[in-house]
Amino acid sequence: MGEVAERARVNLEYFNLDQVAEAATKPLIFGAVRGALIAHAERRTQVPEPMHLTFPDADGDCHVKAGYCLDSPHFAVKIATGFYANSRLGLETNDGLMLLMSATTGSPLAVLADNGWLTAWRTAAAGALITDVLTSPQISEVGVLGAGLQAQLQVEWLHELRPLARVMVWGRHEDAAARLVSRFRRNGLNAVATGISEAAGAECVITATAAHTPLIHCGAFTAANHVTAIGADMPGKSELPPELFARAATIATDDHSQCLKHGDFGNAVRAGWVRETADTPIGTLLRDEATDRRGFSIADLTGVGALDAQVASAVFAALAADLDAPPTTR
Amino acid sequence: MGEVAERARVNLEYFNLDQVAEAATKPLIFGAVRGALIAHAERRTQVPEPMHLTFPDADGDCHVKAGYCLDSPHFAVKIATGFYANSRLGLETNDGLMLLMSATTGSPLAVLADNGWLTAWRTAAAGALITDVLTSPQISEVGVLGAGLQAQLQVEWLHELRPLARVMVWGRHEDAAARLVSRFRRNGLNAVATGISEAAGAECVITATAAHTPLIHCGAFTAANHVTAIGADMPGKSELPPELFARAATIATDDHSQCLKHGDFGNAVRAGWVRETADTPIGTLLRDEATDRRGFSIADLTGVGALDAQVASAVFAALAADLDAPPTTR
Repeated sequence: MGEVAERARVNLEYFNLDQVAEAATKPLIFGAVRGALIAHAERRTQVPEPMHLTFPDADGDCHVKAGYCLDSPHFAVKIATGFYANSRLGLETNDGLMLLMSATTGSPLAVLADNGWLTAWRTAAAGALITDVLTSPQISEVGVLGAGLQAQLQVEWLHELRPLARVMVWGRHEDAAARLVSRFRRNGLNAVATGISEAAGAECVITATAAHTPLIHCGAFTAANHVTAIGADMPGKSELPPELFARAATIATDDHSQCLKHGDFGNAVRAGWVRETADTPIGTLLRDEATDRRGFSIADLTGVGALDAQVASAVFAALAADLDAPPTTR
Repeated sequence: MGEVAERARVNLEYFNLDQVAEAATKPLIFGAVRGALIAHAERRTQVPEPMHLTFPDADGDCHVKAGYCLDSPHFAVKIATGFYANSRLGLETNDGLMLLMSATTGSPLAVLADNGWLTAWRTAAAGALITDVLTSPQISEVGVLGAGLQAQLQVEWLHELRPLARVMVWGRHEDAAARLVSRFRRNGLNAVATGISEAAGAECVITATAAHTPLIHCGAFTAANHVTAIGADMPGKSELPPELFARAATIATDDHSQCLKHGDFGNAVRAGWVRETADTPIGTLLRDEATDRRGFSIADLTGVGALDAQVASAVFAALAADLDAPPTTR
């Protein structure tokens, strides 16, 4: 079709997972996520309602998110899939990629073929940042409910911000919990597999499961100074007992309306335990570091496209700087 | 970040515009679009609400569409941008790309870096297919309101289905209309630049403009047997006088709720000239070819993600077959 020659060409860069992983250092991700959470709290972002497709025959779903932080030179579109029959085929369950676009010309700039890792890391960074700010400084004991990738990353990224003296891991599947504990120990963390009551009884508790009903009753959180809930990221999911929110002096959300719609915060509001306006944006708490850290707090995260945009933008900047550096084979 | 090595890798193919354009023959696009329109009419598709971002500083916007035809091995996510300050930078206004995903594993399969051309072609194919089916067979005269790329493509693709004896072109900018007429003539079409009344007075009329108010009054459509309206693809746009719909024996829409929301059909419904249920899916009319073609008809197109999905899938199949063929340099 001859007419295409009339058009300007996009100079679209393609980066594979190895390249993305090398550029995506923890400091870079922490910085991008922190900036995006603050921008989102200050309403300097655009985050359209995500798109969602389902594939019942393959037990799969696909979420498409987009985000833009005003004043950024870039915006991003992210495709994330979860196909739960994949394990039977020897394939990973989760996959996806990010597309970085120019916010000044609309041109596609880069495909970050990250297999979903940037999402995992930005979620870990967002959780770790708010867990660190809302947990009393002297606390170094963490209980983790969940033994999957995100449970692992939440602990490892938090350990970067605040050295953890003790990690108690509970998982629905004991072997997964044992594997996670081994991994933590190999990396020098003092980790132990426990029952759910012991893990929930820690001073700082992180939940990162795919649960659809509260993991444990409210009374189990005997010592908790802070709880971060990561798992409930779509309608129907739930990790925390809703009445726990009534005890919280501070409720932090990454996106007010999204957490109302499909986070644990929304479940608590609908159950009548807290008012719809009881939450504070995570970005505000990160910016002000103003909390006195003495009250009990809960952070509820559902995942915001603005974080993807800033992470993709920062990774691309690092990769592009790399490309501009010494002439080398690619 | 060492943990990434644990994961399976996506075998993501990347195709540039030249490759896409070579694979995207008119018969292939016509076939895919026809199939998708029929599937959509039969509710065998998933088409989430599109996402939309705006970039006021750059006079830009971005639409993200997704689509899936059930039983297809693929689904697609499409990014389309329009940045209207680009022309001042010597760049094209429209850009974008398509991402083809596996509907069985969720893996990203291919980036079709088409700079938005597949959208232009699938829109041309959809318009031409329904214009051909709804216009009386003996009619070979077409009036075109608009002188942009889509006006050009609508005529050229319709000419593939039904040889056109005469094309009358009206454009808001006379020089653009003159250029389009020259192009048509070079390609052997009997084209002439006319006033808007003459073009609207043709037996078959196609509108493909970015107008926000009706282009001309209802009485101007003196001879029209059929009108296809392409331009109104978002809220606020409008090409046809709403009362024209009251004259139509058949109203065809590519997506009922989308055309209600931001097509000319919706404008006519809100103005009280037709009932909300007065339309028939384009795919039904294509499948049945059941119209008697005697009554006056209007087709309203707003663009459906299911078409993108089937077009991307068909192009990928052609490209993959090509790759599987003789071993050659790529």
